Amino acid sequence: MNASDAIRRSFIFSSLDEEQLAKVLTITREKKFHKDEIIMQEGEKGDSMYLVVEGEVGVSKSLTMKFGDNDFRQTEKVLTSFKPEDHVIFGEMALIGQDSRSASIIARTDCLFLGISRGDFIKLIEADSNLGMKILMKLSELLINRLKQSSQDIIRLTTALSIALNK
Amino acid sequence: MNASDAIRRSFIFSSLDEEQLAKVLTITREKKFHKDEIIMQEGEKGDSMYLVVEGEVGVSKSLTMKFGDNDFRQTEKVLTSFKPEDHVIFGEMALIGQDSRSASIIARTDCLFLGISRGDFIKLIEADSNLGMKILMKLSELLINRLKQSSQDIIRLTTALSIALNK
Repeated sequence: MNASDAIRRSFIFSSLDEEQLAKVLTITREKKFHKDEIIMQEGEKGDSMYLVVEGEVGVSKSLTMKFGDNDFRQTEKVLTSFKPEDHVIFGEMALIGQDSRSASIIARTDCLFLGISRGDFIKLIEADSNLGMKILMKLSELLINRLKQSSQDIIRLTTALSIALNK
Repeated sequence: MNASDAIRRSFIFSSLDEEQLAKVLTITREKKFHKDEIIMQEGEKGDSMYLVVEGEVGVSKSLTMKFGDNDFRQTEKVLTSFKPEDHVIFGEMALIGQDSRSASIIARTDCLFLGISRGDFIKLIEADSNLGMKILMKLSELLINRLKQSSQDIIRLTTALSIALNK
């Protein structure tokens, strides 16, 4: 996949026309990561979003788990992994405001990313508010989908907890 | 509080200037609810968002809880309640796309709401994309804050579940 395709197929840019896609391409920067390199560290401040052009990445989140009486350990829970054909973006919350990364992203193979910084993104959408609106509509849709997924997870976990406590 | 103040103080409209606030006001519709009336039913399709101008509302979500062996019951969990001075909006996800309501909202007192339908909202932001962008930036910020809250809830619940299972 090349940079232009990676943008075109990414959900938040999927409603843009050719001219608008070309404008987005001008603010992207290629960034390479080696296998096992940490791309994003959970909790760190970030000001860029990324999309995968080549390679495979893993997403993980830290959790406190109980292993025995008074034995609580911080464990790393690997959530999932993504390839370019998943057309996933990372760190998109950073486009809207100063963001603490909500998960860690690690390169599972050598990777090529496209990065977009918040500063460049804001300049772009302020210069072309029609373009900005199309991206923000899709970004809102993406966030809503994630929020619904989270709500379902909360209900599932609450139910499981209720069962565990009543055993 | 009057309709104009309710809009002005609502987070997603907080970056608009006077002229833009006036435009938003033209697409709002007043809606009254009596005490104990259901304003929104969890799971139902909806195409409007609301903000509270007068009265108090309660938010609840249904959960499956275990009360004994093979005794699972669907219970209603009251999450919280809101007054006009909380400047809270409901059903804002419906502005972006067809939405199943994620919680139920009930009138705890007689209430006056302002409603904005998706159709009117889309027309408004397409006619004035600068206005649209300002609202969508704030909406994204709101969704991101909720998503972070949900993530913390998931971590807390996962931790609690791990402790309960290892007792």
